[in-house]
Amino acid sequence: MLTSPTLLLNKEISIRNIERMARKAKASDAVFRPHFKTHQSIEVGRWFRDLGVECITVSSLRMAFYFASDGWKDITVAFPVNIREWKQINELAERINLNILVENVEAVSFLEDKLLNPVGVFIKTDTGYGRTGVDAEDFEAMQMLLELLKTAKKLIFMGFLTHAGNTYHAGSVDEIKKIKEEAFSKLLALKTFLRQDFPLLQLSYGDTPSCSVVDDLSGVDELRPGNLVFYDEMQYHLGACRREDIAVALAAPVVAKHPERNELVVHGGAVHLSKESISGTGGEKLFGTAVALDGYSWDVSEVLGHVTGLSQEHGIITVSDGKVFEKIRIGDMLAILPVHSCLTANLMRGYVTTAGESIGMM
Amino acid sequence: MLTSPTLLLNKEISIRNIERMARKAKASDAVFRPHFKTHQSIEVGRWFRDLGVECITVSSLRMAFYFASDGWKDITVAFPVNIREWKQINELAERINLNILVENVEAVSFLEDKLLNPVGVFIKTDTGYGRTGVDAEDFEAMQMLLELLKTAKKLIFMGFLTHAGNTYHAGSVDEIKKIKEEAFSKLLALKTFLRQDFPLLQLSYGDTPSCSVVDDLSGVDELRPGNLVFYDEMQYHLGACRREDIAVALAAPVVAKHPERNELVVHGGAVHLSKESISGTGGEKLFGTAVALDGYSWDVSEVLGHVTGLSQEHGIITVSDGKVFEKIRIGDMLAILPVHSCLTANLMRGYVTTAGESIGMM
Repeated sequence: MLTSPTLLLNKEISIRNIERMARKAKASDAVFRPHFKTHQSIEVGRWFRDLGVECITVSSLRMAFYFASDGWKDITVAFPVNIREWKQINELAERINLNILVENVEAVSFLEDKLLNPVGVFIKTDTGYGRTGVDAEDFEAMQMLLELLKTAKKLIFMGFLTHAGNTYHAGSVDEIKKIKEEAFSKLLALKTFLRQDFPLLQLSYGDTPSCSVVDDLSGVDELRPGNLVFYDEMQYHLGACRREDIAVALAAPVVAKHPERNELVVHGGAVHLSKESISGTGGEKLFGTAVALDGYSWDVSEVLGHVTGLSQEHGIITVSDGKVFEKIRIGDMLAILPVHSCLTANLMRGYVTTAGESIGMM
Repeated sequence: MLTSPTLLLNKEISIRNIERMARKAKASDAVFRPHFKTHQSIEVGRWFRDLGVECITVSSLRMAFYFASDGWKDITVAFPVNIREWKQINELAERINLNILVENVEAVSFLEDKLLNPVGVFIKTDTGYGRTGVDAEDFEAMQMLLELLKTAKKLIFMGFLTHAGNTYHAGSVDEIKKIKEEAFSKLLALKTFLRQDFPLLQLSYGDTPSCSVVDDLSGVDELRPGNLVFYDEMQYHLGACRREDIAVALAAPVVAKHPERNELVVHGGAVHLSKESISGTGGEKLFGTAVALDGYSWDVSEVLGHVTGLSQEHGIITVSDGKVFEKIRIGDMLAILPVHSCLTANLMRGYVTTAGESIGMM
């Protein structure tokens, strides 16, 4: 019996999500290099491997070591390289095909001096997100990096990598598609421009919203979506998945009822769900969606309420339907679909499958 | 040498913060029962013990077990009791003085039936926060609970407990003081009302902002602030501490610079700092404050910039002063004062002191 906050994982849903994306990548003639920062789990990683995945993406060197320990041999750390970790890069690059990202000459010069083994290098490219990377249209800045990389012995230039994270701010599926189009066309322009000097350069593209809503992703060499393994309420609100595709839910016990304000209190707070929020119809912050839980399985056919407040351990669920409110009792367990499954999983540090099996994490 | 994101802890500052609050509690003739959810560390707990603290507060039964394992014998779980955990309550109540919170008759009836050992019970009381608890002025609801508790054999009624968390939304120190006054007067009204039936009933009060800004906290029996062990940018903005009192900072390496938008990128994101934010002067979200780091020690005399964006692993720091921006190099480590130290500590799962010593957590 579930007694305390537990992150439930529906393996069937997750594998269906992985299969769908793997098929799409294949049909688009692109390598599927999923981002493993979402699940951070060797066991979940093996579900991908069983479906033919050989190359993966992670967001830190520590995570790369973790997955390398389970036999992954081709790992891209999709984060601007932290040059202070050059010793660890050397250690890992001795054992696996390691790719890193650069976006400034300082990192290239420093690492070329320190590295002992060849390391693949992608130039982190900004196609419009504006978070990090070299502006895809700043050919001058690109050339400066390429000049250095051309003569580098340890840093092996692989190509351009982008995360079109601006899809997360899109107001519609059409807008997501447009962002993807722009990103692809900028990447392809770079490839065309440099074709003669670098005939083998690769284009690496990622982000779950656009990889989910666009059917044909032909044109790039690899796809790096990660969140698809679980999806979440944010993806659902973006139109990137159905609620039925969400593979994780936080089981949370009801500890208090406040009928005068239609609120339930559950043990399930910021240390379980994270403070990531989406906007409700009235602009209010929502931290999750509550649905019924039966044993270890949840049922998305009816939304019971939304998490409208969070403190460290408390979740406040607003239930507007009086009859629904009345039926829920102190001591019941509810399932909360998280807003951002990556952050929720990172906080929970482990899963229990709907079959009752425990799954570990990094 | 620090290479990757690390939560630094200045022990001297922390002990000074603890001492200050312990002195204030003593002068106010109240028991200091600090909330340990902030640090979640046996070792940091011992700093309190060394200063004479014997009773503590935690936010989950799991945390109670953790601290009980280090010899704490008097623990209040300051969270509306989760009745599904009745077996664990029985187990723990056999070994220590355990207090729990109730706020509904369902929990009282259920537990009275299941408990094997006496457990102290506080009625969780809402003095204006509106998150959880029985409205302090709803004497009728209180009476219903008290009727049950009066005849209970295992649940030992201790008194009323409130967390005046509305201080966190206060716009000024005066407003914090006013919230504390209101809470105290509501609690004292309850005590007066019930003096004859329950001559020994206790009043338990908590929240770091008011316990920090109010000098004389006489009137209640115990004080449960927790955040004071570290403080953070939120407390600083509320006027509850000075920046010099903040005892933790996230060391984060600079991985990219974007002079065209005055932005640095650090490895230090939502999985390190949490997504808790405060509002900047222009209403923008701030997730932390960057200051200089020298070895393991940070310097709050100059603010370098603010964390204005966060994704899973990335932190975006906006540095408005061009000269400051120029001085910071790729590979430098900065110190980021967190907005909410409880959530940051919970994510980081361990500390390194400014003396370079590692400290574990739950």
